[in-house]
Amino acid sequence: MNTLYPSSKITPRIITSGSRHSILLSDVIFKVRSEEPIEFIDLTDQINRHLLEHGIRNGTATVFSRHTTAAIKINEAEELLLEDFKQMLRRLCPVEHDYHHNDMSRRKPPIAPDERPNAHSHCMHLLLSTSETIPVVESRLALGTWQRIFMVELDGPREREVHLRCHSYVSSGFELEIPANGNGHGSRSSGSTEPYSNSAK
Amino acid sequence: MNTLYPSSKITPRIITSGSRHSILLSDVIFKVRSEEPIEFIDLTDQINRHLLEHGIRNGTATVFSRHTTAAIKINEAEELLLEDFKQMLRRLCPVEHDYHHNDMSRRKPPIAPDERPNAHSHCMHLLLSTSETIPVVESRLALGTWQRIFMVELDGPREREVHLRCHSYVSSGFELEIPANGNGHGSRSSGSTEPYSNSAK
Amino acid sequence: MNTLYPSSKITPRIITSGSRHSILLSDVIFKVRSEEPIEFIDLTDQINRHLLEHGIRNGTATVFSRHTTAAIKINEAEELLLEDFKQMLRRLCPVEHDYHHNDMSRRKPPIAPDERPNAHSHCMHLLLSTSETIPVVESRLALGTWQRIFMVELDGPREREVHLRCHSYVSSGFELEIPANGNGHGSRSSGSTEPYSNSAK
Ligand SMILES: [Zn+2]
Ligand SMILES: [Zn+2]
Ligand SMILES: [Zn+2]
Repeated sequence: MNTLYPSSKITPRIITSGSRHSILLSDVIFKVRSEEPIEFIDLTDQINRHLLEHGIRNGTATVFSRHTTAAIKINEAEELLLEDFKQMLRRLCPVEHDYHHNDMSRRKPPIAPDERPNAHSHCMHLLLSTSETIPVVESRLALGTWQRIFMVELDGPREREVHLRCHSYVSSGFELEIPANGNGHGSRSSGSTEPYSNSAK
Repeated sequence: MNTLYPSSKITPRIITSGSRHSILLSDVIFKVRSEEPIEFIDLTDQINRHLLEHGIRNGTATVFSRHTTAAIKINEAEELLLEDFKQMLRRLCPVEHDYHHNDMSRRKPPIAPDERPNAHSHCMHLLLSTSETIPVVESRLALGTWQRIFMVELDGPREREVHLRCHSYVSSGFELEIPANGNGHGSRSSGSTEPYSNSAK
Repeated sequence: MNTLYPSSKITPRIITSGSRHSILLSDVIFKVRSEEPIEFIDLTDQINRHLLEHGIRNGTATVFSRHTTAAIKINEAEELLLEDFKQMLRRLCPVEHDYHHNDMSRRKPPIAPDERPNAHSHCMHLLLSTSETIPVVESRLALGTWQRIFMVELDGPREREVHLRCHSYVSSGFELEIPANGNGHGSRSSGSTEPYSNSAK
């Protein structure tokens, strides 16, 4: 028993618990074209559309960037906040810093034909994530009200690839016990429903 | 063959390898009440209790925060260290910084009814994680001796929701080949057993 | 519909979509010996070898560090860049900082017998990741051309354990629709094939 935090602060609410028998595996690569050196590109609607169109009803989605200077992160799609994020990344990993990786005279092959002095981009990436794994409920990413999933370009503009791998679980007697339209909170995405009750950021 | 690091430094030890046929999918939402602006709330015991009570024996647990200013991270539950973490987060993402997101006059709707000037909280979140995925072995999170899983409040006090999604795999002939009580190391959690041999942080 | 980014920038390409019936669960612990205080140890080849030798053909791999001062991250195995990463980590989490965790007189038990003043190592870890989850395609980690998976030692030298948990999906009629040798890009790893078309970092 951990004494730092009383367990009374943490209350479980069971949503579903049952056995599933058949797995549907689904892979898709999203081609993403960035236009700025640092850019947050919101993939949420495209992923939800894919889940719905391909019958991926309940399962798990892993959104995986195939690049070392483009990351995947979940946060809020608020325009001013995204500017703050860019400023923070530039402050923590300044472009003008004296990086070893940018000294092409010392680099050993292979070097990418389109390589730029981009050590700051790799450094930003190290502080972010290559992938996010998200539960899927009723053919939607089970995100909170303010959560959106982004590909974060750190060395743009470039053409990028994001791998979406979904596992879904199907069985004859499947019935989720959560309400499909659990609350009336506004959401940034049209048609979004929130099966959970808390809209705090 | 990567020449930077000799493969002799990396030794595999096979634990188990076999086929499984039936999947148990389980979802639970933990309601978590924070009391401080920045607070590390240890969820490990509650999650382990849930795994045990619901027969989730071997599989994978994804612990997912439904918020853009509350993160999930694994580290050590050492009281002084958690203070160091808070100081580092405040140093990297200062509250008093001049953030665009906090200028409500320029914000476009929707804005959460309980929105506060919290750009620093979102920035801290960007440096942390929305979720952690952890192997489950014998109805316990297969954590190392010093690892504990935290919800990290970054804009408290608030009521939060943490989604625990578990996949477990069951078959008639299931038998894990790891010892249930592999070592005698002390642990912060009562009843914890460590099926692996290394207690280094 | 998110108005910040037009959906025309994001193009999906379906790779595969079909039902799978049987799951192969596989666990292995890699013992990793580090030699430096901060060190990036490339695990990619050993993991790929394991996948191939154990018939883990299509599925998902979770690479999980069992330590609070050793992380798992994906980035590029470029020697000079790894030096830049170390410098950034030391700059963001300086060793000489005055940390509470390093004041042994105030620490409560249990304390690891081999504990060192390592608050900076824990702080670096908080900014990195405990695990990475990667799709497996045709018995290989489905990484981009420049991506390699590292255990990042932050408090070495030490003996470490990295847990590799693989889920793989098998069925009689399995046939992936992606080319096995999709492009001709150079790669750091001998025998590596890239089933996708984009080699941008
Ligand atoms: Zn580069
Ligand atoms: Zn906000
Ligand atoms: Zn320590």
